[in-house]
Amino acid sequence: MLNFEFKNPTKILFGKGQIAQIATEIPAQSKVLLLYGGGSIKKNGIYEQVKEATRGFEVVEFGGIPANPEYEVLLRAIKVIKEEGITFMLAVGGGSVIDGTKFLSSAALYQGESPWDILSKRIRTEQGLPFGTVLTIPATGSEMNSGAVITRSETQEKLGMGGPGLFPQFSILDPQVVASIPQRQLANGITDAFTHVLEQYMTYPAGALLQDRLSESIMLTLVEIAPKILADPSDYEAASNFMWSCTMALNGLIQKGVPTDWAVHSMGHELTAFFGIDHARTLAIIAPNHYRYNFEKKKEKLAQYAERVWSVGQGTIEEKARLAIEKTENFFRSLEIETKLSAYTASYEGTAEKIAQNFRSRGWTGLGERKDLKPEDVEEIVKMSY
Amino acid sequence: MLNFEFKNPTKILFGKGQIAQIATEIPAQSKVLLLYGGGSIKKNGIYEQVKEATRGFEVVEFGGIPANPEYEVLLRAIKVIKEEGITFMLAVGGGSVIDGTKFLSSAALYQGESPWDILSKRIRTEQGLPFGTVLTIPATGSEMNSGAVITRSETQEKLGMGGPGLFPQFSILDPQVVASIPQRQLANGITDAFTHVLEQYMTYPAGALLQDRLSESIMLTLVEIAPKILADPSDYEAASNFMWSCTMALNGLIQKGVPTDWAVHSMGHELTAFFGIDHARTLAIIAPNHYRYNFEKKKEKLAQYAERVWSVGQGTIEEKARLAIEKTENFFRSLEIETKLSAYTASYEGTAEKIAQNFRSRGWTGLGERKDLKPEDVEEIVKMSY
Repeated sequence: MLNFEFKNPTKILFGKGQIAQIATEIPAQSKVLLLYGGGSIKKNGIYEQVKEATRGFEVVEFGGIPANPEYEVLLRAIKVIKEEGITFMLAVGGGSVIDGTKFLSSAALYQGESPWDILSKRIRTEQGLPFGTVLTIPATGSEMNSGAVITRSETQEKLGMGGPGLFPQFSILDPQVVASIPQRQLANGITDAFTHVLEQYMTYPAGALLQDRLSESIMLTLVEIAPKILADPSDYEAASNFMWSCTMALNGLIQKGVPTDWAVHSMGHELTAFFGIDHARTLAIIAPNHYRYNFEKKKEKLAQYAERVWSVGQGTIEEKARLAIEKTENFFRSLEIETKLSAYTASYEGTAEKIAQNFRSRGWTGLGERKDLKPEDVEEIVKMSY
Repeated sequence: MLNFEFKNPTKILFGKGQIAQIATEIPAQSKVLLLYGGGSIKKNGIYEQVKEATRGFEVVEFGGIPANPEYEVLLRAIKVIKEEGITFMLAVGGGSVIDGTKFLSSAALYQGESPWDILSKRIRTEQGLPFGTVLTIPATGSEMNSGAVITRSETQEKLGMGGPGLFPQFSILDPQVVASIPQRQLANGITDAFTHVLEQYMTYPAGALLQDRLSESIMLTLVEIAPKILADPSDYEAASNFMWSCTMALNGLIQKGVPTDWAVHSMGHELTAFFGIDHARTLAIIAPNHYRYNFEKKKEKLAQYAERVWSVGQGTIEEKARLAIEKTENFFRSLEIETKLSAYTASYEGTAEKIAQNFRSRGWTGLGERKDLKPEDVEEIVKMSY
């Protein structure tokens, strides 16, 4: 097991009717900026519950944060925060709204020239403007971690940021919200969470027996609830396990003491920046081929995963490992997620070269758990994914 | 899944050489009370490492906190805290030293008549004197939770306390300390952590699929590492998984969203108060018979545990559940832990009646996940354990 530090101070309020708790979690006298996305919360009743719960506060609203939270939109929100003297933010939405709010949390207190520095210069946020969240789409885990990914369409960039100042003060997880999520987003959420676990697990054995089993627990649960959720998103048992699994997949716990990969995300982000493909779907396109390409380096963990998650009992390590990749790809397909780039765009030719070039131009440090993947390797993996 | 709230702000520093980090974790200018137990830290080198790491601080020492931290001893420590103007405490030890420090954290700021009130009147600690820990014996999980158990030998009482003010600011977990722990305490630690998981798991199915699997992960890991740890406590891979499993067994995570039992602990604490039997051993005496006595109420979970932790593939729910109890008792015995009260004391007659009477006199509310166990039931379970 590798050395690690772990601290996650976010308070989780999980279950039916927890939205009403907002009133006691936001500091008294706060001037609140209520942030949300395209307005689905006005159709499913969540907006009304939040308004009711925040009645005692002065609340300014900022809606319209798009999927893949867009830098230009967020710049407008910074203006509102400063003009209105906002002291607390409440993000009501999925990962995009919460990630956007994290950027605002950092940018509102940033003293440098341009808030884009936070992303381009990888400035760690030690302290941010405090915020809470009401999660409406389980997927990214952003509700209980200190990371965010921001998109700038002007430059076709999608970059990450983070730091201990960016944990939500609280996050409200009411699984009843799952009932009104469209099938497409349910499938995305399951795929996103599952791939988050893979990125922290599918490396090489590092003697972290407990962490391996915790990761397998989340994957086993997602595999178990996936068909139930898609068949009936109002199934509370399935919805609550779906929601808590997504949070646990990326709240820092399972990555502690183990090597982590994240190459699938690095490549996937590029596909979203180029083609606007849903984040989760880019992961499903890249992950199986990433594992095929790096088969020798990852086969021990692939075989263990085959045994414990997919109950593969027979065969050599290589046979089990190969089967594991097939099972993973089939799992994504069972969610009606296409796993080839060509299923999403006709103009995929040249993508691999462009991504490799982007990586080169950003100052290449090597991808994957061994930091040994070069732009040429990325180019091959993306080509395998056409 | 049941509704829950979860917040655990303790910072964990895990791994080789982490004791040196103390210097950066204790607030500057602190006047530190260094607390420890019987002095084993002076033999295994930990005391020297801690002294070296705290060189920049004014440090007062208070050693001699006994196993089952004793109220009378702790009263003397409160006097030191007040006379010396202590602003930060550093607990270096196992669960007893850490639990004792938690009592001091609460008592140092307590305004009422007698600090015993905190225990006898179950006063929740919202704010305590801040403290950190250096864990030297994996077992209780006290290093990452907000609970403590204090013993008062004068009245043969062993009572619990807690509250959000009692989380350690930080805890240092260096698995290298395991190498110098005697076999008896290693066996105790494994048994204690394993039973902690059982108390939060062995109830009835509540639709918390993920939490069940997380609990099973910890138990599977403990079963896997137990023989390795006893054979060679300097095996770092086994030691690190042992240490992190003990912490994860009682840091609040696996109890969220599920019913919990804790009747085994309630009965076990009485055996320690009467006979001075090691805490973990009292759990091994009581747990199997508690499950036999409450078989009908717990058989579904017992059977699931048989399948997933002990790989029992065949049989009815009842057959699997019965086998699960046997496997558990055999596991404790494999650690050279006796599972009958009569193996520890010749004067066990009348114990069951006395424990039942104690519970009656403290204002009975019912034990177990359904709060339906009466003093008569406790009497039966303890008698089965003779």
